[in-house]
Amino acid sequence: MRVLGIDPGLTRCGIGVIDVDAARRTSLVHVGVARSPQNLATHFRLAQIGDAIDEAIATYKPEVVAIERVFAQSNLQSVTTTMQVMGAAMLCAGRAGLPLAVHTPSEVKAAITGSGTAGKAQVQHMVARILGLEKAPKPADAADALAVAICHAWRGTGLQGARADGNINVSLSGGVSARGSMTEAQKQWADALATTRRKGAVDPRVQGRR
Amino acid sequence: MRVLGIDPGLTRCGIGVIDVDAARRTSLVHVGVARSPQNLATHFRLAQIGDAIDEAIATYKPEVVAIERVFAQSNLQSVTTTMQVMGAAMLCAGRAGLPLAVHTPSEVKAAITGSGTAGKAQVQHMVARILGLEKAPKPADAADALAVAICHAWRGTGLQGARADGNINVSLSGGVSARGSMTEAQKQWADALATTRRKGAVDPRVQGRR
Repeated sequence: MRVLGIDPGLTRCGIGVIDVDAARRTSLVHVGVARSPQNLATHFRLAQIGDAIDEAIATYKPEVVAIERVFAQSNLQSVTTTMQVMGAAMLCAGRAGLPLAVHTPSEVKAAITGSGTAGKAQVQHMVARILGLEKAPKPADAADALAVAICHAWRGTGLQGARADGNINVSLSGGVSARGSMTEAQKQWADALATTRRKGAVDPRVQGRR
Repeated sequence: MRVLGIDPGLTRCGIGVIDVDAARRTSLVHVGVARSPQNLATHFRLAQIGDAIDEAIATYKPEVVAIERVFAQSNLQSVTTTMQVMGAAMLCAGRAGLPLAVHTPSEVKAAITGSGTAGKAQVQHMVARILGLEKAPKPADAADALAVAICHAWRGTGLQGARADGNINVSLSGGVSARGSMTEAQKQWADALATTRRKGAVDPRVQGRR
């Protein structure tokens, strides 16, 4: 399965494409960031971001699009803008006839690091580990786009389009370990986590127990 | 000047087109509502709404697009969705290379009725009067789309695209009467308001003074 992950943003919109095989092994296909100049009117910036998403869909032909859901934050203007980018991105996926999944930031963090409250650096680190990259993709928006794609692939939520709200939003019950027997991807994840621990990075699951 | 007004919504998206001459006389070109079925996934619904807006732009060739700005309301899901529709509509305007203006609901109401707190029925009534229609366009979304188009035309805010935020959002100072000498459009508006008063409808400007 090929997944296009999008981390919506107007100044930087992360776009990542991964392949996932039947054993849930993941590999990097493409990662990048669509940018739009801050001195341009918002609707022209949205058009530029939309064009970049269309291009990624046309070039890499994903089977599904996964977007990170934005939540209300302290900055209302920022939320408004990001919601608009999300709308533009969803329109692109819709016009391409692709199924779409929306995952919350905590779902993404939990799928990637084991903790729904993991920091950005930790997510970036794990994304690099999972995809076998030497370094974490930069900027954070690029890594976040890959993270939501991996999250979607690993959580294994099926295609949608029939559900009235159009969003897949399955609740996370116990993280990856709840999946039953350990798959290749889980081993991959466990190995990556072990490496992280060996290097002295904090395992998110033991934070607060020190 | 030809203005395309949009009242963003996923179930019903109002689309109205008006012509305004140099004397600010307004006339109806087109009014309609783009609908999308509630049992369809959101991103496919956004694509349908976007297609309808593209079609209106291609058919009626407006020189500017005016959108009613959505604000935070009690229903977060509704705001989220409407913001996404707004993003999709803005992308359409941006791809068409058109200037875009965003007006708040109170700006629209004030421009159309003289009161920023006018009710829906009053706005519908005045839209019909201003455009010389026998009946108010239904549903309310259609009338609201015309209202934001009239608001934009009458407030005379210039083309934009250079401003960093991409939105025209001039504060209203004293309503239409602040424009100086009375234009044709103002007379048209004053006549419509007088007719409304004669019929016993409440003049929004005297509300609270009874």
